[in-house]
Amino acid sequence: MKIFEELESEVQSYARSFPRVFHRAQGAHLFDEDGNKYIDFLAGAGTLNYGHNNPVFKEKLIEYIMEDGVTHGLDLHTKAKAAFLESFNEYILKPRDLEYMVQFTGPTGTNAVEAALKLARNVTGRENIVSFTNGFHGCSLGSLSVTGNSHHRGAAGTSLGAGVSTVPFDGYLGDGIETTEYLDKVLSDSSSGVDLPAAVIVETVQGEGGINAASFEWLQNLEAVCKKHEVLLIVDDIQAGCGRTGTFFSFEPAGIKPDIVTMSKSIGGYGLPFAIVLMTPELDQWKPGEHNGTFRGNNLAFVTAKAAIDTFWKDNTFEKEIQRKGDYILKRTQAIVDKYGEGNFTLHGRGMMRGINCVSGELAGKITHKCFQNGLMIETSGADDHVVKFLCPLIISDEDLKQGIDILESAIKEVCAKEDDMPEAKSYFDENYDIAV
Amino acid sequence: MKIFEELESEVQSYARSFPRVFHRAQGAHLFDEDGNKYIDFLAGAGTLNYGHNNPVFKEKLIEYIMEDGVTHGLDLHTKAKAAFLESFNEYILKPRDLEYMVQFTGPTGTNAVEAALKLARNVTGRENIVSFTNGFHGCSLGSLSVTGNSHHRGAAGTSLGAGVSTVPFDGYLGDGIETTEYLDKVLSDSSSGVDLPAAVIVETVQGEGGINAASFEWLQNLEAVCKKHEVLLIVDDIQAGCGRTGTFFSFEPAGIKPDIVTMSKSIGGYGLPFAIVLMTPELDQWKPGEHNGTFRGNNLAFVTAKAAIDTFWKDNTFEKEIQRKGDYILKRTQAIVDKYGEGNFTLHGRGMMRGINCVSGELAGKITHKCFQNGLMIETSGADDHVVKFLCPLIISDEDLKQGIDILESAIKEVCAKEDDMPEAKSYFDENYDIAV
Amino acid sequence: MKIFEELESEVQSYARSFPRVFHRAQGAHLFDEDGNKYIDFLAGAGTLNYGHNNPVFKEKLIEYIMEDGVTHGLDLHTKAKAAFLESFNEYILKPRDLEYMVQFTGPTGTNAVEAALKLARNVTGRENIVSFTNGFHGCSLGSLSVTGNSHHRGAAGTSLGAGVSTVPFDGYLGDGIETTEYLDKVLSDSSSGVDLPAAVIVETVQGEGGINAASFEWLQNLEAVCKKHEVLLIVDDIQAGCGRTGTFFSFEPAGIKPDIVTMSKSIGGYGLPFAIVLMTPELDQWKPGEHNGTFRGNNLAFVTAKAAIDTFWKDNTFEKEIQRKGDYILKRTQAIVDKYGEGNFTLHGRGMMRGINCVSGELAGKITHKCFQNGLMIETSGADDHVVKFLCPLIISDEDLKQGIDILESAIKEVCAKEDDMPEAKSYFDENYDIAV
Amino acid sequence: MKIFEELESEVQSYARSFPRVFHRAQGAHLFDEDGNKYIDFLAGAGTLNYGHNNPVFKEKLIEYIMEDGVTHGLDLHTKAKAAFLESFNEYILKPRDLEYMVQFTGPTGTNAVEAALKLARNVTGRENIVSFTNGFHGCSLGSLSVTGNSHHRGAAGTSLGAGVSTVPFDGYLGDGIETTEYLDKVLSDSSSGVDLPAAVIVETVQGEGGINAASFEWLQNLEAVCKKHEVLLIVDDIQAGCGRTGTFFSFEPAGIKPDIVTMSKSIGGYGLPFAIVLMTPELDQWKPGEHNGTFRGNNLAFVTAKAAIDTFWKDNTFEKEIQRKGDYILKRTQAIVDKYGEGNFTLHGRGMMRGINCVSGELAGKITHKCFQNGLMIETSGADDHVVKFLCPLIISDEDLKQGIDILESAIKEVCAKEDDMPEAKSYFDENYDIAV
Repeated sequence: MKIFEELESEVQSYARSFPRVFHRAQGAHLFDEDGNKYIDFLAGAGTLNYGHNNPVFKEKLIEYIMEDGVTHGLDLHTKAKAAFLESFNEYILKPRDLEYMVQFTGPTGTNAVEAALKLARNVTGRENIVSFTNGFHGCSLGSLSVTGNSHHRGAAGTSLGAGVSTVPFDGYLGDGIETTEYLDKVLSDSSSGVDLPAAVIVETVQGEGGINAASFEWLQNLEAVCKKHEVLLIVDDIQAGCGRTGTFFSFEPAGIKPDIVTMSKSIGGYGLPFAIVLMTPELDQWKPGEHNGTFRGNNLAFVTAKAAIDTFWKDNTFEKEIQRKGDYILKRTQAIVDKYGEGNFTLHGRGMMRGINCVSGELAGKITHKCFQNGLMIETSGADDHVVKFLCPLIISDEDLKQGIDILESAIKEVCAKEDDMPEAKSYFDENYDIAV
Repeated sequence: MKIFEELESEVQSYARSFPRVFHRAQGAHLFDEDGNKYIDFLAGAGTLNYGHNNPVFKEKLIEYIMEDGVTHGLDLHTKAKAAFLESFNEYILKPRDLEYMVQFTGPTGTNAVEAALKLARNVTGRENIVSFTNGFHGCSLGSLSVTGNSHHRGAAGTSLGAGVSTVPFDGYLGDGIETTEYLDKVLSDSSSGVDLPAAVIVETVQGEGGINAASFEWLQNLEAVCKKHEVLLIVDDIQAGCGRTGTFFSFEPAGIKPDIVTMSKSIGGYGLPFAIVLMTPELDQWKPGEHNGTFRGNNLAFVTAKAAIDTFWKDNTFEKEIQRKGDYILKRTQAIVDKYGEGNFTLHGRGMMRGINCVSGELAGKITHKCFQNGLMIETSGADDHVVKFLCPLIISDEDLKQGIDILESAIKEVCAKEDDMPEAKSYFDENYDIAV
Repeated sequence: MKIFEELESEVQSYARSFPRVFHRAQGAHLFDEDGNKYIDFLAGAGTLNYGHNNPVFKEKLIEYIMEDGVTHGLDLHTKAKAAFLESFNEYILKPRDLEYMVQFTGPTGTNAVEAALKLARNVTGRENIVSFTNGFHGCSLGSLSVTGNSHHRGAAGTSLGAGVSTVPFDGYLGDGIETTEYLDKVLSDSSSGVDLPAAVIVETVQGEGGINAASFEWLQNLEAVCKKHEVLLIVDDIQAGCGRTGTFFSFEPAGIKPDIVTMSKSIGGYGLPFAIVLMTPELDQWKPGEHNGTFRGNNLAFVTAKAAIDTFWKDNTFEKEIQRKGDYILKRTQAIVDKYGEGNFTLHGRGMMRGINCVSGELAGKITHKCFQNGLMIETSGADDHVVKFLCPLIISDEDLKQGIDILESAIKEVCAKEDDMPEAKSYFDENYDIAV
Repeated sequence: MKIFEELESEVQSYARSFPRVFHRAQGAHLFDEDGNKYIDFLAGAGTLNYGHNNPVFKEKLIEYIMEDGVTHGLDLHTKAKAAFLESFNEYILKPRDLEYMVQFTGPTGTNAVEAALKLARNVTGRENIVSFTNGFHGCSLGSLSVTGNSHHRGAAGTSLGAGVSTVPFDGYLGDGIETTEYLDKVLSDSSSGVDLPAAVIVETVQGEGGINAASFEWLQNLEAVCKKHEVLLIVDDIQAGCGRTGTFFSFEPAGIKPDIVTMSKSIGGYGLPFAIVLMTPELDQWKPGEHNGTFRGNNLAFVTAKAAIDTFWKDNTFEKEIQRKGDYILKRTQAIVDKYGEGNFTLHGRGMMRGINCVSGELAGKITHKCFQNGLMIETSGADDHVVKFLCPLIISDEDLKQGIDILESAIKEVCAKEDDMPEAKSYFDENYDIAV
């Protein structure tokens, strides 16, 4: 640990919540330097939908490296890129009747968002972008301007928000108020102060914002408002995509077709940096090199991304699995909320992207801290870090899933109990607790 | 190629100049689908200083993957990260008497620049940033605002430049005008319209801007002006760093110590996405997670980055090699310029970062096109793409280097000759030209 | 007219609606070059609350000019300024228990708004300003950024909205939705995307936005939300102030005490350019000359401004008069709406600031055009110019008021009748219509 | 004075330098409440070129007020406006062979500048504006963004400079460096970071920036660079215009024809708020009401503005007078500089817009303070208030001019003498000093 204290910047975050040095990872498990095993309910903040170091992908990766396949090729055409595009087209786009062009941006989500915003602005000739309360899209300046979080916004040190209007997400104004009507009103009203935007950027389920899932009807209404005002609809599917909510794209069950889609995190399959922007062909008005970046051809990620598609998305087996496990999570968390929430806790999310709103960030923090002591890595999200966020690998075994939720339940039980009723919990690794390795 | 036409966005750039599908790469060579070999004078725009798929790094990489080392770990402490930090500290920082904290940002250069700008603004409480004519720092909104190129700036579709003042780089106002004096004057003058900046961001050799190398004296003056006005000095060493100009950091021979340094491209060694920000300890005032990103822990890159340091930077052998090859390039290009430049061509750059200013972008384009026909991949840079840019791997063999320059010389000779004097050049791959594989 | 066509810019607006050359004006009347008399329901867009060329003010003005009182004195202390301040303090501030410092800005409303925004930002150290849908605060860049109207916003040609968040005004989300709760929510939510603002800027009755009157309860709630979040409350009383709604300040009956108040238009009494910013003493943290302007001491306006206060505001007689006439307008317009509005027309406003929402801008335009033909000058406001806007001088005689409304009623009757039922209306001045001079 | 202390904001500036209450003013004189007379070398910061309360203009003003001419008419056509336009066309535009349309903006210089910037941006569809070091154009947000002064810029509390590039004014880089070449270079260089601007905005003599007069050649070069790059040239003639430098427009002797000209200050003749924008007919692409403002028809100012033109600009008599007095000022100040400046003081300016650069703001402040004690009101300008600024009424008598300069010379003599050599200066009003009234 000493080298981290000496040399690594104070900006660290996860390393503070999980202060161990990790050596190995497999599937739903991380192992620290002492060999302790942890069940991973973080999944790389949504990057490891297929788990750590999936053996099938690993084989393909090793093979490619061994044969000296092009590793870094700027945006040159490579065998690996062609193969990825073939699989993506065949198994993802075509079956969903989606016609998109694929842009390889710098290999981070924020870069894809930056590209999407640029494209929307250039094609429409408009500057304004509509974003939503509690939205999160990244930390580079353009993405930050459409991100709600004040902790991140405050770090900019310069003006944000030129050309961005924030409007209320689904449910933000309370039950019974359809917030797309507000959006429609301000766009219809030439004196509203909300300039006609190039695009609306939305997450169907807000990951960092507290696992807020928009209803399908709201998404349909949003698409209709966009069409009515000839505004582009950008779905940022970086966290909610790649099967997380039950389908490859999170917007599929709503039956909408966004003009632009941003993807990253699990699209690379193996946790390797990768990001793409999908756009309808008529929007592909980029001039050569207008948006560039050194690593926009991360060929190792192309290899594992293809492997992920080939392995999981040729038919709907995987979707059913996610649905089944998602239902299990829902059932278990519902019981937990009913039992310990005292009427205050609420459930959020969709598929295997779930959250328990504990109202208090302090409380949620105690819960996740306790979980870590007992071998479960799980984080919080939301404005006040008040939502315990379930983001386990989609390929998690039933046993691990059960065990993880058991640990969580114990933690909640312990934290929510009156202090004088409870003996201090013993640490998982101090004891020879039976669910251990 | 069909899949690229069908599915890949029009934003492609290098793929247009080098319209082949590439399958393999080794050292200074790329091989296309038909097995044709190309000498690579691009080096991934500065990412492949150690060449393609360096066998030593490859071995370490395979080993790490095979043992299921953590691939994706957000910003968790991992074995691979610790090992990288140890080597970086031991062989890079300490011997150069540099005390820096290391921030792992999203793994792209632009992300590191965004972080550096944020940090400078937050620590100083000032908004303005001074950037230089012909500077290039990336394509996300914050980086773009300090980038000079209008092709890229125009793509933003929104205001750039709030809180950015552009001033002339070394030599921009002609010989004999020390442009740091201008900077000093506007910073000393409370009515200049240039608000006291948080920081100055500079490349010691401007890569995309036309291989413009600042003199050491100018860099020293710049540092002095910064110190005088208590303005932070950020050196963007993304392209010029990692040995490219002859030393690990490009600013070493100038004897300056920047407050903040951004690194990416070759820092990962193997062409894997990686970026860091170095800052003096007193500047490390980040709050946890203020600047985040999913892939800020690209552990595979940590492994190869460490391998690169261990292999090349334990002593000064490599530096001497770069110097020797740089001198060779200088000598050869000087001869070419003298012979074919008709007094118009000029030489630019330092170490193995060199450029021939051909004045005309059209001419430079013809030259590089001709080179590609003859098996050499080389690109242009500068405002009008008028500079032929040498950026071969630092580990290139003498033979490959000679052959590459020979091809270039032939191309220049051919292009610069009067059209009626010259038969149409024959393509390298159509013929059995003797320098071929 | 020829000189206007030849030389005056296309930017003209009122001159298009009322295409005559005007020579004289008295009280509620304007007279054109041919001696035709018009009843003035514009009142200089709220500048002529005391009518044109009030004889009492005129006498004071002539006296001051004759004795060579200082006309232009930058911000020097002058007799005229002292006298104005004495009266303003004695008859306006003290009786209302308001403690404000007075800043003399450049003599236009937009300049006062610019100063108010600067002050709020400087004192709080925050950048964001909350403005409201349909708000109008002026056309210089700062004021424009808090103005809703897209016709005006679009003219900026540069980014607006950096540091401005627009939220819904009272009633904007429909009956039963208290929009201050939305404001409270986004300010309470650290992830809303609405950065904690320096201030909220609001008109109690939106003049240009369509005569939308906020309820007193809403204003009280707004003040409470501001206090809760330690956000400054700026009331822009430029159009609604100076008695227009029934009290000197429009916010008096709501019982709120804004931190900053902007005034212009009728504050000068005689239609002379004048503007002030009122601020609580603890906010007066201006440094000398920080916000300046050549005409911030328009001494002729000080003289007439004092005369207006001395004449109309020493007791509450004038307030009662406004209330009485306002009630008459309400009664008459209610009858008109009931009779001709076919259930679509609605009434808006407060005191003598009233509007008939005709839903259609085309319809409203026909009505005001017809009015002008019949000797009444009246304009429209609102996003689509769909609101016929009553803004007659507060000192209008009962006879003129009745006659003006009679003309309006005839115009509405005529316009709203089916076209085939109605003969073409004859122009007022072509005929010897009995209400003429 | 008490009322000012109690009620007037801390923002006061001139009132601090000249802490008296002023009662009357005539020609080149101001009189305080005790009857003390001051020679006015401020001239309302350039507003009183024709002196205080010119009797001819006064007569016209009184006449117009007495006959109830329209005082406030928004932008309606009025007799007074027509008469002004006729005179302006006949005696100003036509003889100078200038074809301009006239826009009446809100009656302050900053409003005219805001309108000019909008127009340039809208017509060209570009955002960037080039402004100059030490330029001053006003304090509303748009004007402030092209103003150099950090005291004023800092007051904005929000980002300035989006879409503004500052470049060096004539002489800023020292003798022998033609700064228009730098401008030409950055506009020619697509990678300079200076986006192709809509317009360049320039003062021919920078008033607030330290009385820096551009050479005619520089202005010609500037015009040529603008034409070359199809960039509009805006001359802000608010302070230098209306005869101040010897001709009606300050740019006349340079032989250039700006695309847009802003005027205010002395254009109204009598010190009444007034501002106009002149634009070539093809630029008059305003849509109705796009830039508006309540007081854009300050009819009293139209009356005195016409009187000023009719009185002073029907022939070139006045120009010769200004030239003669300007020469006198130059001769006297040259002698003063030679005698007391010890090689440090320098002279700046043109016509009757002159400055003595005293290098030190503290020194200049002592001088002007001393002057005031002896009956001369004169201010400083420049980044450090280091320039004593001559801006007396153009109509000043030879006697007053001599006396004013005598007072200044005494003050400089006294201040520049060693402190131990000099007895404390006696105040002008305490003694019966012979140059007194």
